[in-house]
Amino acid sequence: MTLNPSFANAEIVADAISPQIFRDAMSKMGAAVNIVTSDGPAGKAGFAATAVCSVTDTPPTLLVCLNRSASVFNAVMENQALCVNVLSSAHDRLSNLFGGKTPVEERFAAASWHRGISGAPVLDDAVVSFDCMVTDGMDVGTHRVLFCSVLSVSEGEGADALIYFKRGYHSVGVGAAS
Amino acid sequence: MTLNPSFANAEIVADAISPQIFRDAMSKMGAAVNIVTSDGPAGKAGFAATAVCSVTDTPPTLLVCLNRSASVFNAVMENQALCVNVLSSAHDRLSNLFGGKTPVEERFAAASWHRGISGAPVLDDAVVSFDCMVTDGMDVGTHRVLFCSVLSVSEGEGADALIYFKRGYHSVGVGAAS
Repeated sequence: MTLNPSFANAEIVADAISPQIFRDAMSKMGAAVNIVTSDGPAGKAGFAATAVCSVTDTPPTLLVCLNRSASVFNAVMENQALCVNVLSSAHDRLSNLFGGKTPVEERFAAASWHRGISGAPVLDDAVVSFDCMVTDGMDVGTHRVLFCSVLSVSEGEGADALIYFKRGYHSVGVGAAS
Repeated sequence: MTLNPSFANAEIVADAISPQIFRDAMSKMGAAVNIVTSDGPAGKAGFAATAVCSVTDTPPTLLVCLNRSASVFNAVMENQALCVNVLSSAHDRLSNLFGGKTPVEERFAAASWHRGISGAPVLDDAVVSFDCMVTDGMDVGTHRVLFCSVLSVSEGEGADALIYFKRGYHSVGVGAAS
């Protein structure tokens, strides 16, 4: 796209925002904690992610931002399948497992799963799960934005949600603050 | 991209997820509430949004999903500028104003703003604000995903965050549930 001429010097300004400043600021944008899983020709994979976002309901589509240097990147791309499992407030330890260096089998052994239409593991007691086919991708900087067509959803039993805000876990829901 | 042959029939399955089922499921993925503002050649605009997501810190980039039929769409595209203002728990009424049918001047009159580098209004008491230049876009279904280069960030005073979950507002932060 053609840039607005008033942004002729914007490149210089953007250079002043360091990755650390950006990450610190982003830590103040609260987000649901999800475990994104995948399975298929490249094997099972799973990671904790907050960079997940609804795109459109026509057709039902969400996106997941994934670092192209992440260990799970190639598996997700080859499997072309993923499931976004929205975590409840009871899942903080599970989130830590999937956000750390724990081997993949140990990660999955810590919870109960069933297989989705896509082949990806669906967390039995997630608040809600979106089983998806990865249909498109766009590279932006270090990351790829994966556009995912939703094949099925499975909803849990009204549990409180796990929210990540200011680098800590918080509970939101019926039993939490209003 | 070439689709995995195992998804030959996935199109049929995806058709079974109605927009309403998708929206109901998405209401269970908690999200920060933001007011996205814009100003420039096309005039001032602002709307409440939860479909905002960090993309990469190199270079600092976020994305905003916007319905191409939204009244603010043309203004944001022409201005090529927007500011994502992350709301605090004190901003629930402001969020309703920017999510409704209130005329633009009345929306902005309900809070205090200063002008960002991009020209967009920055909410004085936001939890944090990301002033951005819109650098790229990708159409997906009814929406356009706007990729935004962050020009500056301004952080507020440790306020609680406003989270939208199950179609209601919730407060998360120092004074909220852990």
